[in-house]
Amino acid sequence: MDIQTLRERHPDHWMRATAIRALTLDAVAAANSGHSGMPMGMADVATVLFANHLKFDASAPRWPDRDRFILSAGHGSMLLYSLMYLTGYADMTLEQVKNFRQWGAITAGHPEYGHVSAAETTTGPLGQGISNAVGFAMAEESLRARWGAKVQDHYTYVIAGDGCLMEGVSQEAIGLAGKLQLSRLIVLWDDNGITIDGKVSLSDVTDQSARFAASGWDVFSCDGHDPEDIDRAITAAKASPRPAMIACKTHIAIGHAAQDTSKGHGALTDKAQLQAAKDGYGWPGGPFEVPADVKSWWEGVGAKGQTARADWETRLAALSPAKQAEFKRIFAGDAPAKLTATIRGVKKQAVEDLPKLATRAASEKVLAAVNPVMQETIGGSADLTGSNNTKTADLGVFSAEDRKGRYVYYGIREHGMAAAMNGLALHGGVRAYGGTFMCFTDYARPSMRLSALMGVPVVYVMTHDSIGLGEDGPTHQPVEHLAISRATPNTYVIRPADLVETAEAWEVALTTKTTPTVLALSRQNLPAVRKTHTNQNLVSKGAYVLAEATGKRQVILMATGSEVEIALKARDLLEAEGIGTRVVSMPCLELFAEQDAAYRRKVLPPGAVRVAIEAGVRFGWDAWLLGEGGKRDKADFVGMQGFGASAPAERLYAEFGITAEAAAAKAKALL
Amino acid sequence: MDIQTLRERHPDHWMRATAIRALTLDAVAAANSGHSGMPMGMADVATVLFANHLKFDASAPRWPDRDRFILSAGHGSMLLYSLMYLTGYADMTLEQVKNFRQWGAITAGHPEYGHVSAAETTTGPLGQGISNAVGFAMAEESLRARWGAKVQDHYTYVIAGDGCLMEGVSQEAIGLAGKLQLSRLIVLWDDNGITIDGKVSLSDVTDQSARFAASGWDVFSCDGHDPEDIDRAITAAKASPRPAMIACKTHIAIGHAAQDTSKGHGALTDKAQLQAAKDGYGWPGGPFEVPADVKSWWEGVGAKGQTARADWETRLAALSPAKQAEFKRIFAGDAPAKLTATIRGVKKQAVEDLPKLATRAASEKVLAAVNPVMQETIGGSADLTGSNNTKTADLGVFSAEDRKGRYVYYGIREHGMAAAMNGLALHGGVRAYGGTFMCFTDYARPSMRLSALMGVPVVYVMTHDSIGLGEDGPTHQPVEHLAISRATPNTYVIRPADLVETAEAWEVALTTKTTPTVLALSRQNLPAVRKTHTNQNLVSKGAYVLAEATGKRQVILMATGSEVEIALKARDLLEAEGIGTRVVSMPCLELFAEQDAAYRRKVLPPGAVRVAIEAGVRFGWDAWLLGEGGKRDKADFVGMQGFGASAPAERLYAEFGITAEAAAAKAKALL
Repeated sequence: MDIQTLRERHPDHWMRATAIRALTLDAVAAANSGHSGMPMGMADVATVLFANHLKFDASAPRWPDRDRFILSAGHGSMLLYSLMYLTGYADMTLEQVKNFRQWGAITAGHPEYGHVSAAETTTGPLGQGISNAVGFAMAEESLRARWGAKVQDHYTYVIAGDGCLMEGVSQEAIGLAGKLQLSRLIVLWDDNGITIDGKVSLSDVTDQSARFAASGWDVFSCDGHDPEDIDRAITAAKASPRPAMIACKTHIAIGHAAQDTSKGHGALTDKAQLQAAKDGYGWPGGPFEVPADVKSWWEGVGAKGQTARADWETRLAALSPAKQAEFKRIFAGDAPAKLTATIRGVKKQAVEDLPKLATRAASEKVLAAVNPVMQETIGGSADLTGSNNTKTADLGVFSAEDRKGRYVYYGIREHGMAAAMNGLALHGGVRAYGGTFMCFTDYARPSMRLSALMGVPVVYVMTHDSIGLGEDGPTHQPVEHLAISRATPNTYVIRPADLVETAEAWEVALTTKTTPTVLALSRQNLPAVRKTHTNQNLVSKGAYVLAEATGKRQVILMATGSEVEIALKARDLLEAEGIGTRVVSMPCLELFAEQDAAYRRKVLPPGAVRVAIEAGVRFGWDAWLLGEGGKRDKADFVGMQGFGASAPAERLYAEFGITAEAAAAKAKALL
Repeated sequence: MDIQTLRERHPDHWMRATAIRALTLDAVAAANSGHSGMPMGMADVATVLFANHLKFDASAPRWPDRDRFILSAGHGSMLLYSLMYLTGYADMTLEQVKNFRQWGAITAGHPEYGHVSAAETTTGPLGQGISNAVGFAMAEESLRARWGAKVQDHYTYVIAGDGCLMEGVSQEAIGLAGKLQLSRLIVLWDDNGITIDGKVSLSDVTDQSARFAASGWDVFSCDGHDPEDIDRAITAAKASPRPAMIACKTHIAIGHAAQDTSKGHGALTDKAQLQAAKDGYGWPGGPFEVPADVKSWWEGVGAKGQTARADWETRLAALSPAKQAEFKRIFAGDAPAKLTATIRGVKKQAVEDLPKLATRAASEKVLAAVNPVMQETIGGSADLTGSNNTKTADLGVFSAEDRKGRYVYYGIREHGMAAAMNGLALHGGVRAYGGTFMCFTDYARPSMRLSALMGVPVVYVMTHDSIGLGEDGPTHQPVEHLAISRATPNTYVIRPADLVETAEAWEVALTTKTTPTVLALSRQNLPAVRKTHTNQNLVSKGAYVLAEATGKRQVILMATGSEVEIALKARDLLEAEGIGTRVVSMPCLELFAEQDAAYRRKVLPPGAVRVAIEAGVRFGWDAWLLGEGGKRDKADFVGMQGFGASAPAERLYAEFGITAEAAAAKAKALL
């Protein structure tokens, strides 16, 4: 690569793009860690994108109709931070850039949503950003169809690297975007031919353009260091009626001694090499110094979207006050005022009907009531619609033909679905929920973790939540998955026992603004256990006394979901023998942990024998059995010891000893 | 589809294939659950494959040089069970077929490895079988190169459905197989255009042939109901110098009222429709009846491989006795006799050198000693070779050019790597290990669960196992991942503290035959804590007393991995104040739980204050803090409360309070 020629051909562009390279080199050197090569290689592409195409206003980072820019190759975080500093985002001071990767700085190693204002999503785990982007583009299409192009009308741009494209989740994203013809989605692939282990050719021979085209994308390519060629490709991609991928041929760590090598991927901190690179660039500034004319040009880029934003605000203000309020509500993530009454309506009807119902069917009943009053929901399933009970009659289907539809056939793509749900929610204006079997939490895990880390209030509708699914056998029977989600910080795992608890669970899930919810729902029918109405949302307390002991309380049975029925039967057995037994329903251990000590002690007072019943592993239960007033020689657990088996559900419960008789016997043995 | 024409054109073939259809319909009807349509649709393809191509001997299901047949679309388990019954596998009695999906039967809803002799791998979670198959094909290439075609020379066939191809992991498998040019791998795609939610076109427009071709595969197609066309395509695929995919155009649930519909995917149990389908087939048999001539022909198919097997045994017997013994040893999964001495050698050297070393570097030292004496290892990394320290000098690189190499550049494909590792191990003759960052356990989870469920002794080398990785930040810092793996049944999670423990951990991992191991290894350097040599493998006990209290034991500090150093320092602080403190190193909680009560009590006697120190969440620790002789008001935990942050490691430990001072203070507060 002849740097000299690049400099001569486009001298102004060169210096502007090189500002990104210089800041990156300086920040990584100061941190003595990080990834230099990608921001250096993609600086030209980013410069053209931000200057000529991206609709943004550095003074209003969260303006709802901005174009979204997603750095899927999140290790190149200095690209984003440099762009923010140069264009004048208020939060990205030079001090922050200098404190790259240090305690207390917003300039984390990988861009963190909520830390820097221009990070649309947290990236770093590869493949996530490009897959989130599908959700962003879906949200834009949906809102544009339902609110009009006057208030929603933007593109979603992604910079993705080879790692993003090798991760399997990218295939799910590509397939989904291709089917949905998300024409406002444009992926800029940093085609530099280098991964950490060496050349891409060491592990892959995939023709990426052919691969994208096979799933219905339009594909383009450009010289990723030629601003005119980059501009031509982006212009063409914007005009394409399909999602577009632009292969940007670049040199990683361009102009540095490590150019075009895997070493260039990492931290380039050698002082002499760093200076040599800057000299080759013709860069005059010392560490963290940007020439005034270059900085000034960039600030103009940061300000050029102000007119578009003001125009947009004028258009929004022209809507009726009610519409304006609604638009602001959905972007604020607030539940509609009607939600409380709707949930109460379901609960009241439930205690009248006392239906014997699988909680997945209960969930459908709740959604049937909620979806009409909460138009911002977008539901879906990873090809298990009839099993997950996620589709209600009013939703319609979101497709290329009908952008107003609110149900998504995600296909057999649990991971892509979860990533898209994060994108839908992060875009704003949308509440996303999606279903699969609880066991396939495993497939969606990387995105579920990011929901929690980012604090995105998506709802995972996980049905078939135990051996209760029966004949499909151990590959489909979760035993460790409640524990997996519970071990994850900032995640509500709610396992309701009947229709009332399911309604309350959905109310929690739809009103929280910073926590994802995992709903664990049964395949099998369950009797109603909440038989009298109360306005109070008891699930929101995490645990509560469902049935009190008659006379002296000797035993407390704790259970969740489908096992609450078993606890109540065990209570009958014990009470019949004169053993006073309380049943505590514990639909959400995390919410219970959030209650004050007095409430927790009221529900789980010390003294009594404790037996917890859950058709999963014991792992994690000891906090409530032995802690919180419990005692190790007065506590036991009824659940699974290992994986399940293939047989009808009733047989499995009997064979694995998850029965009222077993629970009663364990309690008695401890008295 | 004109059944009549199919019957007339190939009357013998029709009846043979229809035996599969009839058995499937009968078994699903008897179970009143299951998946009828796929075995019905793929019966013709399977019949041609088994009769004309598959090298197998029903009387010797585990013969090492058989062709492998993998039903990636595992819900179609009745296809496998029917083929086994028809061809005469001893374990697949008609009684078993009749007890499809019932308690105690081997005929589980999805094919379970270890239950039925012809299940090469457990399938059902979609995308796994095709990805395991890459490992099978790699194992064959590797063993053929190193042992010669006389003892290893076979194909790996896969039947995959649309679901398998939509799962992202399939892209990782396709990419890996294409790069490695695994020409003995042949995927038969059941191209029936139907998923559970409806037509494939509801959620996907991917041109699968173009997609496979983009990654270096040869692609073929055939009419999946025309035996001559099927035979032609398989013959061509076998001759291809690249991995081959055959698009088999089929009709799901062919000949049934539910043909070509999503209903046909599931359980077809309507009696009248079932009989109508059989009538249309011209099938004379009642439930579970197969005409004698048809059964006899199939038994001939099951026996036709006997000659090939006998010839193979003759060739094996011609090897030197030492080579024969070695071949048997590696296929039995037994460790070599030299392993014990090798591990001891590393341990002895370690206590002489007392190196300050990251445990990932310690792991490399162990592998450098082990790999030369254990030629059956095949290692690799998901593009983090230098970080995971998984490559030793002697291995060479497994590639299309060098099949003798034993190191795999898996690319940025954690999930595909884990699935391939399962395949490598299941093939036999190979011990597989592979590395990524501990946090990306998430990406590999679905395959890691199957390692545990199947009991496959692969080794996951998970480095960068805590906030100790530093600046890369919370996206890369595991906090819940130790808990996730520990919650999974049949999984050894080992977090060694220094080189000696790392050597012992590898010894456990390389000698177990039915349990996968997750090695959690530090990025940061750690001091030696085991300073005197003992032949005994203390890690194999799970936990042990590392430092005894001086005088009266008032405190027990429990720690794993990088936090053992902190526990020892906390002990110094406490002992300096006259507080007798024991330090228990607990590298593997699962192995400790397997010890007898007397040993466990010796290590963790009741009475003392207990503080556990681990740079992860507390979830799961209460079993050891409050149980096992512990007491709730005498126990505490030093670890993470939530996600990490981006900063240098030392700063993070200080800010999150994972320090000797904090541990000592917590212990003192409880005295």
